[in-house]
Amino acid sequence: MGSKPNVLFGLPPGWDALSKALFGNPDFTSFLEGKDHYAPAQIDYFVGFRPAHGFLKTLPRLKAIFSLGAGVDGFLRDPEFPRHVPVVRFIDETLQREMAQYVVMHVLIIHRQQRAFDAAQAQGLWKQRMLARPTREVRVGILGMGDIGAVTAERLLMFDFQVLGWSRTRKTVPGVTSYAGPGELGAFLGQCDIMVCLLPLTPETEGILNASLFAQLPKGAWVMNVGRGGHCNEADLLAALDSDHLAGAVMDVFQKEPLPPDSPIWKHPKITVTPHIAGITDPRNAAAFVADCVKRAESGQPFLNRVDVAKGY
Amino acid sequence: MGSKPNVLFGLPPGWDALSKALFGNPDFTSFLEGKDHYAPAQIDYFVGFRPAHGFLKTLPRLKAIFSLGAGVDGFLRDPEFPRHVPVVRFIDETLQREMAQYVVMHVLIIHRQQRAFDAAQAQGLWKQRMLARPTREVRVGILGMGDIGAVTAERLLMFDFQVLGWSRTRKTVPGVTSYAGPGELGAFLGQCDIMVCLLPLTPETEGILNASLFAQLPKGAWVMNVGRGGHCNEADLLAALDSDHLAGAVMDVFQKEPLPPDSPIWKHPKITVTPHIAGITDPRNAAAFVADCVKRAESGQPFLNRVDVAKGY
Repeated sequence: MGSKPNVLFGLPPGWDALSKALFGNPDFTSFLEGKDHYAPAQIDYFVGFRPAHGFLKTLPRLKAIFSLGAGVDGFLRDPEFPRHVPVVRFIDETLQREMAQYVVMHVLIIHRQQRAFDAAQAQGLWKQRMLARPTREVRVGILGMGDIGAVTAERLLMFDFQVLGWSRTRKTVPGVTSYAGPGELGAFLGQCDIMVCLLPLTPETEGILNASLFAQLPKGAWVMNVGRGGHCNEADLLAALDSDHLAGAVMDVFQKEPLPPDSPIWKHPKITVTPHIAGITDPRNAAAFVADCVKRAESGQPFLNRVDVAKGY
Repeated sequence: MGSKPNVLFGLPPGWDALSKALFGNPDFTSFLEGKDHYAPAQIDYFVGFRPAHGFLKTLPRLKAIFSLGAGVDGFLRDPEFPRHVPVVRFIDETLQREMAQYVVMHVLIIHRQQRAFDAAQAQGLWKQRMLARPTREVRVGILGMGDIGAVTAERLLMFDFQVLGWSRTRKTVPGVTSYAGPGELGAFLGQCDIMVCLLPLTPETEGILNASLFAQLPKGAWVMNVGRGGHCNEADLLAALDSDHLAGAVMDVFQKEPLPPDSPIWKHPKITVTPHIAGITDPRNAAAFVADCVKRAESGQPFLNRVDVAKGY
């Protein structure tokens, strides 16, 4: 193995493109978890999304962990996670912009009532309708105003939506009304015509999309979850939709993924389901990220985007 | 009737909100075509969309015509149109921004394959898929790079699409590759992954979306028509879709509107139909436009946005 560092990749199925791009790197030796033979005691870095709980503690020499997703809950929820090892998360501008595309597209589908036009087309009916209200009167609330939220807000503002944001600590984003902390959550929720969850999943935010939160949204509000499935109590969401308190939901993430075939969410007339594709990591960008992380670590430079393990993001 | 000018409104059905907003104006006397009694010889101004052919020549004192739509083909196609009367078209920033919303929403639906996710949801199938190609490699061509095209281009560029535009005369829009005139149409078409028609309808552009044009688009291209139904040879479009040369179409306007119940367009699996709603004139803005036009005319000021009747826009 010489003096090159050893990097273990724990990649989800279908990530062949990424592994091929990375295996050619001359600066480190790569091993693919579940495929290549390797000595756990000689692994220096781990790259992946959601290793099996208890797995990382079997790598005694681990110097750092590189998360291929923006969210690191897949690592930190491991009760045996080696909390002394630095965790670096992938902050990819392309991923941020893709997430913003997804959110803006679905906000426009809601605002412009495209689903009603789809239904009319299916019936062969010409049904003109005005916008329910002018764009400038529609308030989009971003729950979790981090990097992705800021990019998303910028695009929503360009389309004349009102944008408000809630986060743990107050953020300054031009044009966005900022709410912070649990004390201001109610004031935020009361003004969301469309509420988009972009939070990281932490013990504090787990299950935050529940009956109590939905009740604080205006009647007729929409909910979009592009955070994590663990944010949402799905039974509470279905109840809020079925009582007509909420007008609809767009869900990209679920408590259990893939969403089980017998879940009532699939067929619910008020829910749009997408299979966790709002932001897809580009393997080329991910390869560059890993190469940069290894280089920094080996040359003693500080990591960029190191996770605060106590906060969870 | 005193010295106030007399304004005749020829409004489409369902425009009650507009007529009510306008009837309160103290600066002129309003008449609603088909409802109020009026003396044709005493009408000073006509406001509307698409009067019956031959109607306007029955108003001998007409000083100006105000079009409530951005397109004035509904007037100029009247063989007996009084061509000496000034025509002013409504250029409304809200309308432009709405059209841009529509185009960007449908470009995103195409790019992000949302229809495939809809189909998978209908079958209860979890089918992840990557973007067919990175956003920055997708070329959106705007056929008709006028005011609305420029606003649309700005938003598409913000989402990282490549944008090219074609128009009669060369336009300078930041970030947009400009093509002009018939001689450069082929070069433009050959680079459109998604082609959006935003042209005015004139004798030169009528039927421009035909077999010859579709054949010049790359295989697998998409066509979106938010211009006028008269731009598109619908039989040619269906043939280009059925031969799989085109991947799909989004149509907001049709040769005959409402689209007849027996049209094969309704049920075509590659076509999204919307009922001419891409841009809907806001009655409040339209009322302000009419009031301003009358005021300018009565005080001898030049009209803004006067149509060049020879060019047709």
